[in-house]
Amino acid sequence: MKIETLRWFNNRLEMIDQRILPASFEYLSYYTAASVAEGIRSMVVRGAPAIGVAAAYGVALEALRLSQAAEGRHSGLDPESSDFNKLDSGLHPQGVGRGCNAAEAATTTHRRNDGGVDFKAGMEAGFSVLAASRPTAVNLFWGLKRMRAVWESVAAQTPQQVAQRLLAEAHEILAEDIRINRAMGAFGAELLVDGARVLTHCNAGALATAGWGTALGVFRSAVEAGKKISVIADETRPFLQGARLTAWEMVQENIPVTLITDNMAGFMMARGEVDAVVVGTDRVAANGDVANKIGTYMVAVLARRHNIPFYVACPLSTIDMSIASGADIPIEERSADEVKGFRDYHWAAEGVKIRNPSFDVTPAELVTGLITERGVVRQPDHAKLRWLFEKRQ
Amino acid sequence: MKIETLRWFNNRLEMIDQRILPASFEYLSYYTAASVAEGIRSMVVRGAPAIGVAAAYGVALEALRLSQAAEGRHSGLDPESSDFNKLDSGLHPQGVGRGCNAAEAATTTHRRNDGGVDFKAGMEAGFSVLAASRPTAVNLFWGLKRMRAVWESVAAQTPQQVAQRLLAEAHEILAEDIRINRAMGAFGAELLVDGARVLTHCNAGALATAGWGTALGVFRSAVEAGKKISVIADETRPFLQGARLTAWEMVQENIPVTLITDNMAGFMMARGEVDAVVVGTDRVAANGDVANKIGTYMVAVLARRHNIPFYVACPLSTIDMSIASGADIPIEERSADEVKGFRDYHWAAEGVKIRNPSFDVTPAELVTGLITERGVVRQPDHAKLRWLFEKRQ
Repeated sequence: MKIETLRWFNNRLEMIDQRILPASFEYLSYYTAASVAEGIRSMVVRGAPAIGVAAAYGVALEALRLSQAAEGRHSGLDPESSDFNKLDSGLHPQGVGRGCNAAEAATTTHRRNDGGVDFKAGMEAGFSVLAASRPTAVNLFWGLKRMRAVWESVAAQTPQQVAQRLLAEAHEILAEDIRINRAMGAFGAELLVDGARVLTHCNAGALATAGWGTALGVFRSAVEAGKKISVIADETRPFLQGARLTAWEMVQENIPVTLITDNMAGFMMARGEVDAVVVGTDRVAANGDVANKIGTYMVAVLARRHNIPFYVACPLSTIDMSIASGADIPIEERSADEVKGFRDYHWAAEGVKIRNPSFDVTPAELVTGLITERGVVRQPDHAKLRWLFEKRQ
Repeated sequence: MKIETLRWFNNRLEMIDQRILPASFEYLSYYTAASVAEGIRSMVVRGAPAIGVAAAYGVALEALRLSQAAEGRHSGLDPESSDFNKLDSGLHPQGVGRGCNAAEAATTTHRRNDGGVDFKAGMEAGFSVLAASRPTAVNLFWGLKRMRAVWESVAAQTPQQVAQRLLAEAHEILAEDIRINRAMGAFGAELLVDGARVLTHCNAGALATAGWGTALGVFRSAVEAGKKISVIADETRPFLQGARLTAWEMVQENIPVTLITDNMAGFMMARGEVDAVVVGTDRVAANGDVANKIGTYMVAVLARRHNIPFYVACPLSTIDMSIASGADIPIEERSADEVKGFRDYHWAAEGVKIRNPSFDVTPAELVTGLITERGVVRQPDHAKLRWLFEKRQ
């Protein structure tokens, strides 16, 4: 089964609603930067590379919307809609109440004094709302930076031309993401021996990217190369990406997968039932420190204790050379409700305080290797990462 | 609030149903060894010391039941019941469908060839069903051994006399458990500085004992001694003893408590937000290795990395000198359903395999100290534990 986490369909962005997987498989539709930002914030789409692609489409959608508003039309975006306000609010009947939160996704069309659409101000607002959606994954900012460079290069053209150029760039970012995952997969697959039992945390799969996956892409590539491997998936509280998404992806692929709760990883390692760890990442600092889903650090410390290699599948877009070390990576703290229970089912005692950091930092010294699309960087440090970017492409 | 996890009330054993806390607070009634065994298995009651007390009452209940069956009467046990079969099946209207599982709690009254009740065979069956309820907590076997010693010392007496003597012993075990927790609490409280932020895993509280608690007893004693402390509770998947029970107990006591998911403990330690760890235990081997709720090992490894003291509150009844090391402690693996979700709410992908080890082993080298009712054993080893038992009581 080919998983299309995000797709451009009928002049709109569609994203699988990952909050309701695996019980339901459903696409939500997006028409504006604000609604895409809300989809990122509420974790309809999650996973650093997928967030980067979604943000790129968010910019393109905003350019399309503004260019059509400038023309005084809104066809093409939502052929069935005859209500300009509906388009303007970022909502669409198929997306209402799920993909976009009406209150937070409200979109304003900036206008000049003469009543015309202020395309530049509108685009800036679109970039801003997307940048504010989630703080930790650097791919978000990488994607926005890339879109901004394109926008600035064509700023003299008509809004319609700008919009088409930005949409083409978003398409290219999506296609490139899959090519990069394939390249990482090939390098990573070589690290796994036939029969390897590989533990992973959270979901760094097709669902965390435009397709194929980073860590799970390594597993897919290993299987494609004829290796028999089996996967151990941490359930990954509180959002349960392991139990819901990684388990689901591996079952779809017929790759043997065993689910454990996060606190069982040490037991499995102590019993000699884990041969390697492969995880994804949301941001790698210039010194090789790795920010990834909360709990990754504990897995890394235990892996070191048991001499189990700990690999991080990491496209270059996830490496942030502007940040010296993991201590400077902003760590998102999310709503207490996520820890009280799951979805609307709350089991925690009333009156308890709650912490909900969504990521932690694994120091470079615990990382056996970063698996990138340009090869594996063993024992990453600042010099090796700098060299990686300078490496002939 | 005084929490009576188990109580003898109106000629029956009553236990708080810990499966439905904190949403509901309810006592279930028990009349037979088989139903108590089912209560232990299904985790109506859990926590090593509480299991030991429950098992002792299970033996006493069985002796009472058999002695009354031998007399051909069943009053006193269940005054409202006029149906001997109901009594015989171990079920009671208040316990049906919850405290006791009809199929597994079915109780047989052993009879001699002359039709009389075979008291000895019945008692043996009672001991057996209790011993088979859960494998890891040694307090279960400790409690049964102690009851057996009493039983054997009075075997020549009438069934009624035996039953009364066993009931008195169960009462004594319960009272003693609270005294022991108080003593451990006093020793443990001295280890915590004023203002300490203490992380605990699972629930080693009043609910895991006859009252006061082992690890949480240390916290209660510290507060009683005038120290301000705050508690960080791991939620403890899959049964969520931390989110449901520890958080609830601490809120009842007005001790500040912060709930985190199990995978956040490393983050909190790396941020310098944990000053000490105190946990309970289900069995300590002769070399000081500690079996406790799954995930304890990961906490201990992380605590060592961050130079945070790791204490284990451990009554002598939990130390099993017959077992050389943790490698020989039997580790219970429970039903896959517990990991698929929580209660009837399943979120895991269909088709995934599941592991559910309920305990893990923390090697003695990671234990800063065992807090016992006879004092703190620092860096426990075989010689120190042997000396502890030989120490003048």
